[in-house]
Amino acid sequence: MTRETIEKLLSEVKDGNLTVNQALEHFRDFGSKDLGYANIDTHRELRTGYPEVIYGQGKTPDQVAGIIEFMLTRPHNILATRINEETYLKVLEICPEAVYNKIARTITILRKEIPVPSSFISIITAGTSDLPVAEEAAVTAEIFGNRVERVVDVGVAGIHRLYGKLPFIRQARVHVVVAGMEGALPSIVAGLVDKPVIAVPTSVGYGASFGGLSALLGMLTSCASGISVVNIDNGFGAGFLASMINRL
Amino acid sequence: MTRETIEKLLSEVKDGNLTVNQALEHFRDFGSKDLGYANIDTHRELRTGYPEVIYGQGKTPDQVAGIIEFMLTRPHNILATRINEETYLKVLEICPEAVYNKIARTITILRKEIPVPSSFISIITAGTSDLPVAEEAAVTAEIFGNRVERVVDVGVAGIHRLYGKLPFIRQARVHVVVAGMEGALPSIVAGLVDKPVIAVPTSVGYGASFGGLSALLGMLTSCASGISVVNIDNGFGAGFLASMINRL
Amino acid sequence: MTRETIEKLLSEVKDGNLTVNQALEHFRDFGSKDLGYANIDTHRELRTGYPEVIYGQGKTPDQVAGIIEFMLTRPHNILATRINEETYLKVLEICPEAVYNKIARTITILRKEIPVPSSFISIITAGTSDLPVAEEAAVTAEIFGNRVERVVDVGVAGIHRLYGKLPFIRQARVHVVVAGMEGALPSIVAGLVDKPVIAVPTSVGYGASFGGLSALLGMLTSCASGISVVNIDNGFGAGFLASMINRL
Amino acid sequence: MTRETIEKLLSEVKDGNLTVNQALEHFRDFGSKDLGYANIDTHRELRTGYPEVIYGQGKTPDQVAGIIEFMLTRPHNILATRINEETYLKVLEICPEAVYNKIARTITILRKEIPVPSSFISIITAGTSDLPVAEEAAVTAEIFGNRVERVVDVGVAGIHRLYGKLPFIRQARVHVVVAGMEGALPSIVAGLVDKPVIAVPTSVGYGASFGGLSALLGMLTSCASGISVVNIDNGFGAGFLASMINRL
Amino acid sequence: MTRETIEKLLSEVKDGNLTVNQALEHFRDFGSKDLGYANIDTHRELRTGYPEVIYGQGKTPDQVAGIIEFMLTRPHNILATRINEETYLKVLEICPEAVYNKIARTITILRKEIPVPSSFISIITAGTSDLPVAEEAAVTAEIFGNRVERVVDVGVAGIHRLYGKLPFIRQARVHVVVAGMEGALPSIVAGLVDKPVIAVPTSVGYGASFGGLSALLGMLTSCASGISVVNIDNGFGAGFLASMINRL
Amino acid sequence: MTRETIEKLLSEVKDGNLTVNQALEHFRDFGSKDLGYANIDTHRELRTGYPEVIYGQGKTPDQVAGIIEFMLTRPHNILATRINEETYLKVLEICPEAVYNKIARTITILRKEIPVPSSFISIITAGTSDLPVAEEAAVTAEIFGNRVERVVDVGVAGIHRLYGKLPFIRQARVHVVVAGMEGALPSIVAGLVDKPVIAVPTSVGYGASFGGLSALLGMLTSCASGISVVNIDNGFGAGFLASMINRL
Amino acid sequence: MTRETIEKLLSEVKDGNLTVNQALEHFRDFGSKDLGYANIDTHRELRTGYPEVIYGQGKTPDQVAGIIEFMLTRPHNILATRINEETYLKVLEICPEAVYNKIARTITILRKEIPVPSSFISIITAGTSDLPVAEEAAVTAEIFGNRVERVVDVGVAGIHRLYGKLPFIRQARVHVVVAGMEGALPSIVAGLVDKPVIAVPTSVGYGASFGGLSALLGMLTSCASGISVVNIDNGFGAGFLASMINRL
Amino acid sequence: MTRETIEKLLSEVKDGNLTVNQALEHFRDFGSKDLGYANIDTHRELRTGYPEVIYGQGKTPDQVAGIIEFMLTRPHNILATRINEETYLKVLEICPEAVYNKIARTITILRKEIPVPSSFISIITAGTSDLPVAEEAAVTAEIFGNRVERVVDVGVAGIHRLYGKLPFIRQARVHVVVAGMEGALPSIVAGLVDKPVIAVPTSVGYGASFGGLSALLGMLTSCASGISVVNIDNGFGAGFLASMINRL
Repeated sequence: MTRETIEKLLSEVKDGNLTVNQALEHFRDFGSKDLGYANIDTHRELRTGYPEVIYGQGKTPDQVAGIIEFMLTRPHNILATRINEETYLKVLEICPEAVYNKIARTITILRKEIPVPSSFISIITAGTSDLPVAEEAAVTAEIFGNRVERVVDVGVAGIHRLYGKLPFIRQARVHVVVAGMEGALPSIVAGLVDKPVIAVPTSVGYGASFGGLSALLGMLTSCASGISVVNIDNGFGAGFLASMINRL
Repeated sequence: MTRETIEKLLSEVKDGNLTVNQALEHFRDFGSKDLGYANIDTHRELRTGYPEVIYGQGKTPDQVAGIIEFMLTRPHNILATRINEETYLKVLEICPEAVYNKIARTITILRKEIPVPSSFISIITAGTSDLPVAEEAAVTAEIFGNRVERVVDVGVAGIHRLYGKLPFIRQARVHVVVAGMEGALPSIVAGLVDKPVIAVPTSVGYGASFGGLSALLGMLTSCASGISVVNIDNGFGAGFLASMINRL
Repeated sequence: MTRETIEKLLSEVKDGNLTVNQALEHFRDFGSKDLGYANIDTHRELRTGYPEVIYGQGKTPDQVAGIIEFMLTRPHNILATRINEETYLKVLEICPEAVYNKIARTITILRKEIPVPSSFISIITAGTSDLPVAEEAAVTAEIFGNRVERVVDVGVAGIHRLYGKLPFIRQARVHVVVAGMEGALPSIVAGLVDKPVIAVPTSVGYGASFGGLSALLGMLTSCASGISVVNIDNGFGAGFLASMINRL
Repeated sequence: MTRETIEKLLSEVKDGNLTVNQALEHFRDFGSKDLGYANIDTHRELRTGYPEVIYGQGKTPDQVAGIIEFMLTRPHNILATRINEETYLKVLEICPEAVYNKIARTITILRKEIPVPSSFISIITAGTSDLPVAEEAAVTAEIFGNRVERVVDVGVAGIHRLYGKLPFIRQARVHVVVAGMEGALPSIVAGLVDKPVIAVPTSVGYGASFGGLSALLGMLTSCASGISVVNIDNGFGAGFLASMINRL
Repeated sequence: MTRETIEKLLSEVKDGNLTVNQALEHFRDFGSKDLGYANIDTHRELRTGYPEVIYGQGKTPDQVAGIIEFMLTRPHNILATRINEETYLKVLEICPEAVYNKIARTITILRKEIPVPSSFISIITAGTSDLPVAEEAAVTAEIFGNRVERVVDVGVAGIHRLYGKLPFIRQARVHVVVAGMEGALPSIVAGLVDKPVIAVPTSVGYGASFGGLSALLGMLTSCASGISVVNIDNGFGAGFLASMINRL
Repeated sequence: MTRETIEKLLSEVKDGNLTVNQALEHFRDFGSKDLGYANIDTHRELRTGYPEVIYGQGKTPDQVAGIIEFMLTRPHNILATRINEETYLKVLEICPEAVYNKIARTITILRKEIPVPSSFISIITAGTSDLPVAEEAAVTAEIFGNRVERVVDVGVAGIHRLYGKLPFIRQARVHVVVAGMEGALPSIVAGLVDKPVIAVPTSVGYGASFGGLSALLGMLTSCASGISVVNIDNGFGAGFLASMINRL
Repeated sequence: MTRETIEKLLSEVKDGNLTVNQALEHFRDFGSKDLGYANIDTHRELRTGYPEVIYGQGKTPDQVAGIIEFMLTRPHNILATRINEETYLKVLEICPEAVYNKIARTITILRKEIPVPSSFISIITAGTSDLPVAEEAAVTAEIFGNRVERVVDVGVAGIHRLYGKLPFIRQARVHVVVAGMEGALPSIVAGLVDKPVIAVPTSVGYGASFGGLSALLGMLTSCASGISVVNIDNGFGAGFLASMINRL
Repeated sequence: MTRETIEKLLSEVKDGNLTVNQALEHFRDFGSKDLGYANIDTHRELRTGYPEVIYGQGKTPDQVAGIIEFMLTRPHNILATRINEETYLKVLEICPEAVYNKIARTITILRKEIPVPSSFISIITAGTSDLPVAEEAAVTAEIFGNRVERVVDVGVAGIHRLYGKLPFIRQARVHVVVAGMEGALPSIVAGLVDKPVIAVPTSVGYGASFGGLSALLGMLTSCASGISVVNIDNGFGAGFLASMINRL
């Protein structure tokens, strides 16, 4: 609740336009909708500039569909991540225009156009196996109104593949770099560009990769500057943050 | 074996009401029933105020049913946790009034009324995916004679949802706060209430959540006071302890 | 800020006793005092029933003394933990009645009497080396108005030592059990009493103790019920929570 | 290769009963049989007093059957551990007298009687879920010629169950104590008996049990004396070592 | 080496202004100065927009002074981090205008004015003990031409302290949030603002903090969006990235 | 891009055989083929002496087949690792001469003969369960033109089995030693030979093996000299490096 | 408290030799002496065959001396471990015949002769740096009445050094094998002897030794049979257990 | 003991030049010298081609000097690693020509010339702080008869510094690459050269570096081929192995 809202409420109380009890109502349960199993943060777009996003993991198909059903009563674009096909079919029943991205495992429902800035986001992957995470980042950034350019499979074992794309990459306003195994690619990229690098470790690899831990630690301890890191496999978080920076 | 019991035994021996050998019998195998695969602690309610609870994981359906069959010979309410549907069907054969809670994965068998104090326990979850653990806590607290109030999906990404419920939450005598991922909600709650907070980390999350480890560590290192922590996903332990405190 | 406060503010605005701007002032910076390097939560006693406590680690002697100097302008008892002797000497300069407990490494300044309930807290240690952590818990509970009874060095290698004290221990309203190494004592105690057990792992031990990790994990995974756990060596947290429960 | 063997070889060479080349042959490939996928240590019984045991995990049914087929050409009793039912059926084809223990997941083939000492091994479990590991230990100790006595489900949450069996337990020559979760039982037992305790952590538990890690660390850091530890779920290792000690 | 540089070289070769061998020289050792123990990246400002920064840890006073001596031959501002007082005294000998920040443990040498944008960076700390890391971030951001506003000690145990400053915080273009222990503050902030949040875990805490690991994991697994994380105690990295974003 | 290539380009520009723009083209995208989902490093053989190898994990059958289809347009031998049977069937459709090794889980396609040096590589396993990893190493070394000799199941529990083969093993030019569990075999071998030992930890084992971690740590901390380690289960990496050393 | 003691008490009560209250006294505080900071288990020798041992770490010199002072009132031999020189000097004041072993860091006070069995314990170390831990084991075994034979520095990098001593080692009744780094020596020994092997990991090593963790894991996952493990650097525990086995 | 030695012994026994007992003597204690605290492997050069090296950590100055004193009775060059200045002074007393390298912390004593092959070893470091580890590798390789070329401070934050040296680096026969933090440099180098890369993680870094763990994991999971890894900070191991490969 912002200072402005409080100020307005106080003024209306003072002017007698609102009784104390009416004003009090604004302080209870504002900005959320309780569905029993979920409590939707309807206030989020006002507060953070972005509507609430549905994180599908650990939710039943019915729960996801129920949340989307409520969100359809409001004008925002809708994004749901970590969605399996069973859940998608359930959502289709209540919303035939829902689009499923099989690689990214996302549902998107476009309800209004968002102006897209001319600057773009580069999303770079070290290997082919990193594609699902990169795609989640791309879908996220796109539905929030950004142009995304993908650069695929340019990992450090053949670093000249990155060099070939560098002039193009350097035109982006922010970079998302997705890598598993040793996770060295973000360090290399950050040493070559002058824009923020969002590093996304992936659980790609085996043995001492420990489910993405080696990539995560490598990115956190990078000797290059201008890098920050999100959770392992968190394509959504990277795409969201990239959008935030690209649209500054 | 309490001092009082020993005192009484000694007195009866002294008075000749009991031979030495008869008295000795009370010192062997008292308070337990050996089923071969399990050794039921029939002495527990006297000792700790609560009857033994069946932890279902790692037990076969036959073993769970066998233990319940024995416990039905005694007057206590019965609670079994971590029960799958196959086991429940087996139990139904010997006890048709057994109730299965599918979300909490518990069996409860109500055999006697327990007086419920007027104070209540609040059980608060950060997200929808934390519901199964919260429900295990709620079922546990209820069968041990407590009023439980649930507050769902008020995690820190939209903390005003918690604020909306705060006046109500503050009326509870003890709080169970269930959260996965970064596990920050118990810290927030403990900074706002004046009653004990039992924090339950859940395995909800992915990547650097490491199966609930991040939430666990976050709760243990909380900068707020009045918090203690139980094992990851241990809804039963939290509900049990909350009952103990609520009924003090 | 409670609902009641808001209600009162709104009423005064409505009645013209407060201008909007005056009321607005109450929404900025209430309940805290900014010292530049610290922001003291003066609102905490109202909100949680306990005044703010000073955590000394990582603070310079000057910072600790400065915070205490401000707190002396208010009527509460003062507790500072993790205090070394250099800091204590600094504090003595501004507050000669400050008391230093060398084992617990605490400063206490008694400013007002707090009524002590008749029930008491038992603080039990597994070994002699666990004493400093237990003493921190005891000092904390005492300054917040509790009777504390200490039971020392009754670890599981000679468990009859615990049995000897059991009838006395069982009279407490809540138990704090402090143990390092394998941390088994809280499990044993919880299996023998009918009141909440707060388990405190200590960093006592070597090798596979890993700085208290083995005791911590052992306590979290206890097969006994009625236990919850605080951070390694967190005597303060245990004493605070025990006080909260004892004074329910 | 023992000193005695070498001495005999040297004497025969000296006496001309063996040519140098014949003697040399004894230094290559003695005491093993190469099956291509396995290299059976036929020398082990002479060297360590026990024949080689087949560890079934990671071996195909054909490999296990092939190894057993070879071992049947020799007079020893045969033990195979970590055997699933598919493998057992394969073994039955070549050896109809093979016995499968479903709980312990072992195959045993008795080929000769081993004299059993009068002393016995106690195998104690904390809970019902620890039975498979305990049974693996029992089967192992039995086939190597030992009397085993099982004491089941006497964990620390109801420690009087252990006390009831203590006079009997104390008659054993060596104890195997099997426990998951916090793994406290071996500490308790070791504090009450005067014989070696072999502690076996199990992967029973969830959350902060981390697959048996908490029990393992608890046993390693035990404050009691006379305990040593084997790998998580290693019933075989415990049974083997107990046999070695019982038969000293 | 940018495309433009190559293009220019190629053109000069084509025009005969450069021989092939002369041009080749530009491809060897360009953009670095080898001091024997260090290889200074003089090309970095052109490539990434920022000059090389000296990381002092693990370098002798002589090495740090030697690197600074070389950098003084060039016109950039100079920043050295993780500097102890001994090293600072050594540097003073060759550069009397070097400024040492004792809290941040940095040396700064201002050589030219950098235009400062009107937008600002907020640097927020959870506690007093987080100040050194926050100060390193602030010094870094300032020398790279940014206005920084500090908000101190507003951790989640008394979250209303944050709320009091929120209207001001919300005016920043990017946020650096520094916290140890459970590291929950960045999640709270990110749920309340609409600009990027750079989370910095600190090693403040004890026990299950494991040197900052708990804060790190908590930040990585945050349920809020718009957060990314840098290494534990990496104030420099956060200040650098914040500058990059603020100056976009 | 080597110095020679640049030199030649520069010369051609100088001589007017190439325009600047034509030459520039050589600096973009040289040595790789972009398939959309993969970016094949066609430059690798020139640069490192070995063609790119396909790592199958995390790639769809279609992706693997597509990459192989492209590689068939070039003359190199082809190796794909971590291939399941479904993928193999897909590859068979486009390349009937592809050979699948079921144990090693590799596809090999022999397109040209490579001269094999007279020296050989020994590949030694501690147990039968280590065979798949050893076989991946063997297939890799063979397709890159090496003679491989396998020594199977000579682990330290019966170390005389190793001694029997030692004279033969000592004739190899480089050793690959594959072991799970405690991973002690490479230490033993390295203490007995005078050639490099490449140690490969495997995920064979259970409990405190932690998926190969115990073997990995054991090999890294070996007290013997001449050992280096590759990732857990990384038979390919060991075979590749052994080939590199054998062919020096 | 054994069954016999209870039986005797009951008989005396029955015969009127003891009043109920007198008998009750035997059930409180038997077998321990409370010194305020320590609670000495005077009952232990009766119960486990061994008197209590003083673990010096975390105890002040005064506490150690106080405990020894009490123990001198009883007839047992005294052993204190992890003792620094300052503590030793304090103990000397009250007990001039106390002997300090500088390498093992133990105090021993011989008060009575214990008959020594003819069988002996071998204590074997992998390297010179393992000597302090081995010496703690040796001192412990010796004061409890055992012959100890030391075999030093026969680690796996030169395994023939072990073979040279093997005929002698094989005459021992139980083996203590002490090793750091990869901890492979116990596996080798266990594969060559027919008696129990107690493995002691040491914190000798660096890097991936992680304070003894690599040796610990290696010993726990040993592929040899007849091994069990004690805590890192726990020479006392190994010596104690070896004595228990040797004196069976 | 090689086959040849055994053959010769057998022949001499056969020919009567050796009695059986005389021959037997060769099978006991051959190839080692027992100093009480150390058991020097005098047989190692014959067996592995290299004399024993003294690892100084955990040894007293007297022990190191004693071992060197014995080794001076033999003709080999002597290398001792992890030596502090106090130990060096002790060694100087018995061997004035001992040379101390302060950065590498090694003692070398040159006793005979070793022929140096024409090929060389490149030792490459990511940063200035990696120099001590690199120097230990260099000293080791040099005393075993190799030419070493050092390339310093070419880490991935400014990767063009590596490119500048690449043509020279590519002439080496084997590469040692030393890096802390994220440890990405070996991956880059291995992608650019056609010779074996020995990766050495260092403990340089802070926070999520966890004492070199992040670099270690990054190197183990490298996506490039031709890399193997030694222990954290193990310059000696890398230099030793590089020598072995260079001298193949």
